Amino acid sequence: MSKIITISREFGSGGKYIGILTAKKLGIPCYDRDIIEKIAEESGFVDDFIKRVTEYAPSKSIFAYSFVGRGASGESIEDKIFAIQEKVIKELADKGPCVIVGRSADYILRNYDTLDVFIYAPTADKVKRTMNFKGVSEREAKKLIKETDKKRSINYKYYTGKTWGERENYTVMLNSTELGIEKTAEFIAEIYRRETEK
Amino acid sequence: MSKIITISREFGSGGKYIGILTAKKLGIPCYDRDIIEKIAEESGFVDDFIKRVTEYAPSKSIFAYSFVGRGASGESIEDKIFAIQEKVIKELADKGPCVIVGRSADYILRNYDTLDVFIYAPTADKVKRTMNFKGVSEREAKKLIKETDKKRSINYKYYTGKTWGERENYTVMLNSTELGIEKTAEFIAEIYRRETEK
Repeated sequence: MSKIITISREFGSGGKYIGILTAKKLGIPCYDRDIIEKIAEESGFVDDFIKRVTEYAPSKSIFAYSFVGRGASGESIEDKIFAIQEKVIKELADKGPCVIVGRSADYILRNYDTLDVFIYAPTADKVKRTMNFKGVSEREAKKLIKETDKKRSINYKYYTGKTWGERENYTVMLNSTELGIEKTAEFIAEIYRRETEK
Repeated sequence: MSKIITISREFGSGGKYIGILTAKKLGIPCYDRDIIEKIAEESGFVDDFIKRVTEYAPSKSIFAYSFVGRGASGESIEDKIFAIQEKVIKELADKGPCVIVGRSADYILRNYDTLDVFIYAPTADKVKRTMNFKGVSEREAKKLIKETDKKRSINYKYYTGKTWGERENYTVMLNSTELGIEKTAEFIAEIYRRETEK
C-alpha cells in the first residue's frame, strides 16, 4: 500500500502551501479542500448538496454542529457531504502516493499507511500571513484565524470524536515560522523518503 | 551564539535516549536531569538543598506546587533549586552546542538560539517501554507515567507560566513510536544540521 501524507494546519500557518511544496519535492499530487470538493462535484457524487450547504451561514453551521450529538438519527447535509468527501479521499489515496491537505484526512485514512503532519505557527505570524494573502485588516485576520480554526476543531470533533491539534493524532507537528516554510516542506519530504525506504 | 537542542518528553517516550542518540550523531554533549543535578552539586551551588528536597515525599511536593502562587513572597526550596539549575543550564549552554533533556530548558534558554523538541508516544508504547526499562508491572508503569508527567506539567506551569506539551512552546513535536527511536534522533540531528547551515 502506498504511503499518503496528510496535512492538518492552523489557518495562516502556511500549511496549504507547505503541502503543495512537499508534493512538488516528492513528485506526487497534492489535493486540498478545493480540489476534493471539485472532484466530488464533477464525479457526480454531489449534486445539489454542496449548493444547498453554501446557502447556510457558516456561523449557523458551527452552531448546529455544537448541538448535534454523534450518531444522532437523521443524516444532516453536513453528514452527507462528509460521507462523499470520505469516499473521494479514499479513492484518491487508493490511486497512489499523494499529499492531502485538511478534510480530517488523518482520520479518514486511519487504516492506510500515512504520515500525519500538523503545521502550526505563532499567532503574530499567522496574522501577518493572513493580512498579506487575503488582503484584510489585522482585526479581520485575527477573526478569520479564530473562526476558521474553531470551525475545523468542531468539525473534527464531530466526525472523529478526537481533539483537533492534539499531538496523539499526528506523526509530527512542525512550527512553520521557526523552521521556515521551505524547510518545513523539505523536512516532511525527507521524513517521507526515509519512511518509504524501509 | 551556538545552537542548543532542548528535549522535552513524555515519560516512557524514549526522549532521554533520543537525546543521547541525537547528541552522539552530532558529536556534541548531552545533559540530562541527573547530570545537571550532579554538576550543580559538584560545583558547590547545592549543599544541603538537594538533600533536604529529597526528604520530601514527591506527592507532597506536587501538592505544595499546586497551591503556591507564582511570585509569592518567600522562596521555597524548589525555587532555590530551580534558580541553581537555571544557572547551571545557562552555563552549559554558554559552553557550546549541546542537547539538554528536560528541566524546562526550552523556557530557561528562551533568549538563546534553540531547537525546542517535544517527544511523545501512544500510551500503550510508553507503558511497554516503562515495564521493560524499569522492570515494573503494567499497573505500576501506568502510575509512574501519569504521576511523572503530572509533576512535569505542574512544575513547568509554576516556573514558566506556560502549558507543558502545548505546541506553541516547541519547534517540532515528534511521535517516537511512529517514526522509530533511531529515526527520531536522525530527524532532530538533520534539522539541527540544516538550521546551523544557514
